[in-house]
Amino acid sequence: MKTELSRTLGIEHAIFGFTPFPAVAAAITRAGGFGVLGAVRYTAPDDLARDLDWMQDHTDGLPYGLDVVMPAKKVDGVSEADVEAMIPAGHREFVRATLAKHGVPELAEGEASGWRITGWMEQVARGQLDVAFDYPIKLLANALGSPPADVVARAHDHGVLVAALAGSARHARHHADAGIDIVVAQGYEAGGHTGEIASMVLTPEVVDAVAPLPVLAAGGIGSGEQIAAGLALGAQGVWLGSLWLTTTEADLHSRALTEKLLAAGSGDTVRSRALTGKPARQLRTEWTDAWDDPAGPGPLPMPLQGLLVAEAVSRIQKYEVTPLLGTPVGQIVGRMTTERSVRQVFDELTRGFEKAVDRVNRIAGRGGA
Amino acid sequence: MKTELSRTLGIEHAIFGFTPFPAVAAAITRAGGFGVLGAVRYTAPDDLARDLDWMQDHTDGLPYGLDVVMPAKKVDGVSEADVEAMIPAGHREFVRATLAKHGVPELAEGEASGWRITGWMEQVARGQLDVAFDYPIKLLANALGSPPADVVARAHDHGVLVAALAGSARHARHHADAGIDIVVAQGYEAGGHTGEIASMVLTPEVVDAVAPLPVLAAGGIGSGEQIAAGLALGAQGVWLGSLWLTTTEADLHSRALTEKLLAAGSGDTVRSRALTGKPARQLRTEWTDAWDDPAGPGPLPMPLQGLLVAEAVSRIQKYEVTPLLGTPVGQIVGRMTTERSVRQVFDELTRGFEKAVDRVNRIAGRGGA
Repeated sequence: MKTELSRTLGIEHAIFGFTPFPAVAAAITRAGGFGVLGAVRYTAPDDLARDLDWMQDHTDGLPYGLDVVMPAKKVDGVSEADVEAMIPAGHREFVRATLAKHGVPELAEGEASGWRITGWMEQVARGQLDVAFDYPIKLLANALGSPPADVVARAHDHGVLVAALAGSARHARHHADAGIDIVVAQGYEAGGHTGEIASMVLTPEVVDAVAPLPVLAAGGIGSGEQIAAGLALGAQGVWLGSLWLTTTEADLHSRALTEKLLAAGSGDTVRSRALTGKPARQLRTEWTDAWDDPAGPGPLPMPLQGLLVAEAVSRIQKYEVTPLLGTPVGQIVGRMTTERSVRQVFDELTRGFEKAVDRVNRIAGRGGA
Repeated sequence: MKTELSRTLGIEHAIFGFTPFPAVAAAITRAGGFGVLGAVRYTAPDDLARDLDWMQDHTDGLPYGLDVVMPAKKVDGVSEADVEAMIPAGHREFVRATLAKHGVPELAEGEASGWRITGWMEQVARGQLDVAFDYPIKLLANALGSPPADVVARAHDHGVLVAALAGSARHARHHADAGIDIVVAQGYEAGGHTGEIASMVLTPEVVDAVAPLPVLAAGGIGSGEQIAAGLALGAQGVWLGSLWLTTTEADLHSRALTEKLLAAGSGDTVRSRALTGKPARQLRTEWTDAWDDPAGPGPLPMPLQGLLVAEAVSRIQKYEVTPLLGTPVGQIVGRMTTERSVRQVFDELTRGFEKAVDRVNRIAGRGGA
């Protein structure tokens, strides 16, 4: 499965795997794809350095990349405390009451809450980049808007390609104007932040909008047939995130969450502002229902919502409060019904792709079938 | 472009075109596809007979089909007047005020309002079938749920295949249990009534759910690349509706509406309950905005909403009140930028399909590329 882009990057298959887990990212790279490590949870640069050391030792010299969350919009002279102060008391009370209703325990004294996506991630992301450019990463992806010009320049100075996610042709053109190298066209059905245009329509629209820049198809892809579809739509590769969440190498730190993912159907996700304040597809839970209920106060805009719910999400995850327990994941979750190794998943993808190509060739009357 | 299903039906290309216009349906059939005439607007059986006569004279003996709207749920002993009486006065006032705000003129005395989709369509649809089975139709499609058992049996007695639209694997299994022959998997991005699962995920899910029944991919398909994608996903053909609305053979009776379709981007549709009470994708207009505004009364459930707005929609269409003027159409509307003949559109589809197959073969390393 070779495209111009996969040749540029020196990978066997044009399959890009996004994951927060180094073991998964490394396994994707070793399987012949391109592993992209999500950096958002690394608030301490040393933790990122430790995991990139590990990646370097477990990728046999094959290429991999890093995904950061760096909002293009910068808010100078405003501290996180200033923003915390903007959160209405009624919203804090709603969080408290919703957790209390489900008997969610408090964190221990001094225990840190988990990651959060805020408009104040830029300093964190820049700290991550200071670490990352010491490693031979081949790709830097930005999950939220176009990366700042100096970051693009710095990546290019290091010979690192820059990718950015887009939910519309307009976003994609904006990225192209910002000098990035690859657009990830993220369809409505994808996990995480998405727009409303589905992959079937979005992929070719973005391909046309930014040609000759290469485009990766993201959203709804979890089989070789879907890879063939994404490539037929003009993509130079596919970008898969959700599918790896139930691999044996993934470390969700919650058996209950893994079980929920394995049991969920394609209709069990929702595009909700509950997590970050911007629409992001995730498992539908009583937590998202509470935020999406017209009778409730509703989510705050980014970055307020992320700050508001960070501690609550940590508590729900730590204590595995099943009705509230969720994660960003795409509609492809319906296909994630068994736990397998990354290698098994990857082999099934490439075999399924070959079968889909055979099938389309038969339909087209090619190859004497 | 041949599949088992296209061979069964004796068509050159596995492209099914749904349209309310006989001239479009006949042109699709003559171009080597399978034209399906939407019957919902034929309230008088004689009108349908006249247009099927015309179809018969303009399809060179090639096959075509009919699409009816026949709800599976039947409500006995309740008249249309009973239902009219269930519409709250506040909703009628909202319709009146919204039309008044935009200066929409009244219909002339005694002038009939246009089509409407109601739960009381079954008698109408049965009248259509009495006409249709006198013609050599090869396919009967039902746009709303599984057709009743006696209708399926009657179709099969006439050698007519039965298709039904499904927005989820569960719907599709229900159709299969009802004895239908073909499932049209209608993705979130499609025009008209849709569920929330996008085509990229829905198509293979439905294929798996009803195998070995053939599945047609619908939603987001308006190019040869998208046809290749749908077929790669396991479909035995594709079902296109929106794309024909801006062909030269289409007769929208409104230049303003054609212009709106040509100008609209993929982000200019909305899945709204404004038209029928069930979510249906359509052009976003000030009319859909009014119904989707949380400050308004919101749409009524089917069939009340369809009854409530029927006359208003007729007035908006007749007087071409541009801000309110809409139509069911999918996200593919962004690709509908020029008026061309059905034959030109069809030729571009088949050429684009061949190019997409070439491309996927190059990526797969087939054919010495």
